[in-house]
Amino acid sequence: MFRTHGPFPMRVSSAIRARRSARRFSREAIPKEALRAIIDAGRLAPSGANRQPWHFVVVDDGVVKRRIRDECELADRKWWREAPSWFLRWARSAGLSRRKPFLEEAPFLVSIFYDATKPYSLESTWIAIGFMILQTTEFGLATLTYTPTNTAIRELLNVPRRYALAAILPIGLARDPTHFKRKRMKGLDEVASYNGYNRPISRLLKS
Amino acid sequence: MFRTHGPFPMRVSSAIRARRSARRFSREAIPKEALRAIIDAGRLAPSGANRQPWHFVVVDDGVVKRRIRDECELADRKWWREAPSWFLRWARSAGLSRRKPFLEEAPFLVSIFYDATKPYSLESTWIAIGFMILQTTEFGLATLTYTPTNTAIRELLNVPRRYALAAILPIGLARDPTHFKRKRMKGLDEVASYNGYNRPISRLLKS
Repeated sequence: MFRTHGPFPMRVSSAIRARRSARRFSREAIPKEALRAIIDAGRLAPSGANRQPWHFVVVDDGVVKRRIRDECELADRKWWREAPSWFLRWARSAGLSRRKPFLEEAPFLVSIFYDATKPYSLESTWIAIGFMILQTTEFGLATLTYTPTNTAIRELLNVPRRYALAAILPIGLARDPTHFKRKRMKGLDEVASYNGYNRPISRLLKS
Repeated sequence: MFRTHGPFPMRVSSAIRARRSARRFSREAIPKEALRAIIDAGRLAPSGANRQPWHFVVVDDGVVKRRIRDECELADRKWWREAPSWFLRWARSAGLSRRKPFLEEAPFLVSIFYDATKPYSLESTWIAIGFMILQTTEFGLATLTYTPTNTAIRELLNVPRRYALAAILPIGLARDPTHFKRKRMKGLDEVASYNGYNRPISRLLKS
């Protein structure tokens, strides 16, 4: 049976609060209707001049997933060798490693490409990714916004050269949802101001 | 009384389907709780290395809104003079003009900045914008993802130089929600493939 971790349907504000990034996934299958809704969430996002400059490649083939993982781990090894010290500190505290098991464990990988010849294609595609993340959460499923930095994935999936890879979203059930902690988030006055920078938004919200 | 155009609370998939871009807004006030939830939606979004690289400046001061509108119309006039022909064709068909009344009509403008010195700050901030758009929709409110291309807005709002402007979201009630048509969207097989480009996703979803 399909287990969800939370109520469904879920309102927008609850999904925003329930969302967490997962790094380990169960290999358990997920319903195709969930995957369809997640793709639709990206498909229906707004875009610059309504160009809909995205393409989503869904992968569930184990051999293809393994090759994607290999490519990403290879490219990442280079990045880690040359990574700035703040990244290494953060990675250690976040429990990150060069290993990317989520690229094989999750039943589906959704690789998200944007057509770089279209206006605001990068920006629009990241809005679409935001919609897909919240739709994933509504189904009690988890994802991770993983951003590999190489063109090998595009070639592996036979995607035309005008597209660039924005992110890979592994979609599935989080392996251990009880360890799903909310990261420390900045407070409202740290991220927002009122009628000009450094004028506390709480002045408006509390009045 | 506060009118909403749709059910509230709204589930994620309904918000994705109900969302439209609005270009004319009622000047009617909106509840501060809605604005607070919209800022929170951005604040709680995922970001590269959890750097939360965004800053949101909320403007309701009529004088500041007028100056923002003036700056945007000035910058846009230049863009339109030099715009490519596909843009002019699209703009005509979409009923766009150089006038930006939405920047004064909407009770709130949320200017969204990203700290360009942080990793994946542009990408993360556009996820946050996606979350804010859906939270706006849940409240029965409307917005427009408006992307001005000048630094004058940053200076006008006294935002430090390390930040760049991503977008301005006017937030309010759409003036004429009955004219709120869904644009033509590509079909699933146009935007998604299965285990490689040009392999129809419908093969998976219908099986």
